[in-house]
Amino acid sequence: MKLTTENLSERVDHVYDVIVVGGGAGGLSAGIYLQRYLLSSLIIDKGKARSSWMQELHNYVGLPTDTPGRKLLKQGKEDYVSLGGDFLNAFVEEVIDEGETFAVKVKIGRQNSTYQTFRTKYVIAGSGIIDYLPELENMKNVFDYAGYNMHVCLICDGYEMADQRVGVFGNSEGSLEVAFSLGWFTPYITLFTQGLFDVSDEFRQKLKEHGYLLVEKSINQFVGEKHQMTGVKLADGEIVNLDAGLISMGSKYHADYLKGINLEFQGNNIVTDKMARTSHPRIFAIGDLKVGLNQVVIAAADGALAATQIWRDIRRATGAKRWEANIK
Amino acid sequence: MKLTTENLSERVDHVYDVIVVGGGAGGLSAGIYLQRYLLSSLIIDKGKARSSWMQELHNYVGLPTDTPGRKLLKQGKEDYVSLGGDFLNAFVEEVIDEGETFAVKVKIGRQNSTYQTFRTKYVIAGSGIIDYLPELENMKNVFDYAGYNMHVCLICDGYEMADQRVGVFGNSEGSLEVAFSLGWFTPYITLFTQGLFDVSDEFRQKLKEHGYLLVEKSINQFVGEKHQMTGVKLADGEIVNLDAGLISMGSKYHADYLKGINLEFQGNNIVTDKMARTSHPRIFAIGDLKVGLNQVVIAAADGALAATQIWRDIRRATGAKRWEANIK
Repeated sequence: MKLTTENLSERVDHVYDVIVVGGGAGGLSAGIYLQRYLLSSLIIDKGKARSSWMQELHNYVGLPTDTPGRKLLKQGKEDYVSLGGDFLNAFVEEVIDEGETFAVKVKIGRQNSTYQTFRTKYVIAGSGIIDYLPELENMKNVFDYAGYNMHVCLICDGYEMADQRVGVFGNSEGSLEVAFSLGWFTPYITLFTQGLFDVSDEFRQKLKEHGYLLVEKSINQFVGEKHQMTGVKLADGEIVNLDAGLISMGSKYHADYLKGINLEFQGNNIVTDKMARTSHPRIFAIGDLKVGLNQVVIAAADGALAATQIWRDIRRATGAKRWEANIK
Repeated sequence: MKLTTENLSERVDHVYDVIVVGGGAGGLSAGIYLQRYLLSSLIIDKGKARSSWMQELHNYVGLPTDTPGRKLLKQGKEDYVSLGGDFLNAFVEEVIDEGETFAVKVKIGRQNSTYQTFRTKYVIAGSGIIDYLPELENMKNVFDYAGYNMHVCLICDGYEMADQRVGVFGNSEGSLEVAFSLGWFTPYITLFTQGLFDVSDEFRQKLKEHGYLLVEKSINQFVGEKHQMTGVKLADGEIVNLDAGLISMGSKYHADYLKGINLEFQGNNIVTDKMARTSHPRIFAIGDLKVGLNQVVIAAADGALAATQIWRDIRRATGAKRWEANIK
């Protein structure tokens, strides 16, 4: 059921089989599998899954290619709750390993917050990432265009940028390297340092060889209308016309709640085995948090893998039901 | 475009980047990604993907849980073709490694067949498996119930069998072991050898301890109505009443066309790395053919992985486009 401050006291003494942190495509997929394995699960979602920003999911087979990410999430949440899964809108502050169980401490509500602790045998970390966006004064007008023609994922949206004039917005020389992959789709590339960092001679030379332009002035704002960015206004008033943008400024990893647990990482990503199990045997990581491609369909598959492995663990420890009437 | 005997001569001299064998969820997902990477691809489908048997896809996040498998396939095919992908209904007889390219030999049409050879740089093997079904006289009435309440996948459909009287139909003692996993969902289990094989004392003892019943007579037919199997009629006329069935008779692996290529296998499954690449650098395997869980969402994710890795290979070999106007 959907947990609220009114009914959540019913779950305070309950030990879940699995608490899933994050209600994105991966977490919902895990939840659907877990409920279908007759396990007891709770999804804790802080909202704003990365896919909720996607205006159109172009590459999730089976859904029409103009399906908004939020529609997939809504359908998944409905199906999960109808299978008897618990769902709570809250922020997970900390996961504490207590041996047999974990204590999962959550904060409910941004204002007048209340705090609650849940207990579970397994944790699935599906809380994902969110992309850093250019920090302009009053964020002009980043949110008008992000998820429309201001892209954050080359794999997802390279196709949309084919032969377009694309601005690449980085926060380090390394982050601008994506331009050479973008160069598969279009040659009309302008890189923006936003005045944040210097660029090496070697990198300049590489840009020159490709004919890509480099703008090192800081940016005043994005311009455009009706969710279509048409260019950038620089601090000195100059306008650079563009058809699309690719933001490459890294991501915030929503994994602070795991800080107290010593998991194996590769950079910012959690290392998992092929069933999405982390270096802790009762913690799984799925989707963008783990090492691998950041794609909705892959997060969904990860959820299926993690749920299945947890079911196998629990099933093997529990054994099969006996048909008592036939046993003398 | 959809290839037919009328228009396929247009593609005879074309070298595809990728030919995908199999138009199931995995192949279509791969195709959608490939086309969005601006690669040239052909999906060759013999029809009857395993998911086309599924009356309701219960666990593919984002699709309503009563979506038939064939609806996912239809949507995926439409999207793939609208992205410019080539699609051909045909049977792949052989893949021959010619060094830089593969020759893919196909048979078109079951009657009055024609034969054609296509060429490609990469192959994705997504031709899957199909479950062996009990071989009754005139197959009575297997096809009325298969995919309804005669299940072939415990992970998919265990939930539907919870607390039901389930018949498990095997073709070896090992194949009947699935009963002890099914025992997570229901204790009311009757195992059928169909008179095909003997069962060890050790296995009998294990069944006895669980209270599961064993029927060793051969089966005359399945009984029921309106796609709901209600029991089994044995050769001697006795009826065993059931609420559902689980067929565990192994699967036919559609990989004969790869026989001439020395790929690494694990049992019947093709071994792949985490990007779905086989032991041959230009052959990928996805979905049920490869080692791993047989789930639609996992096949779809595999397609994304394989397509992405092939794109990376080709992109790195090709290099980025240059903005010529800016190069002196």
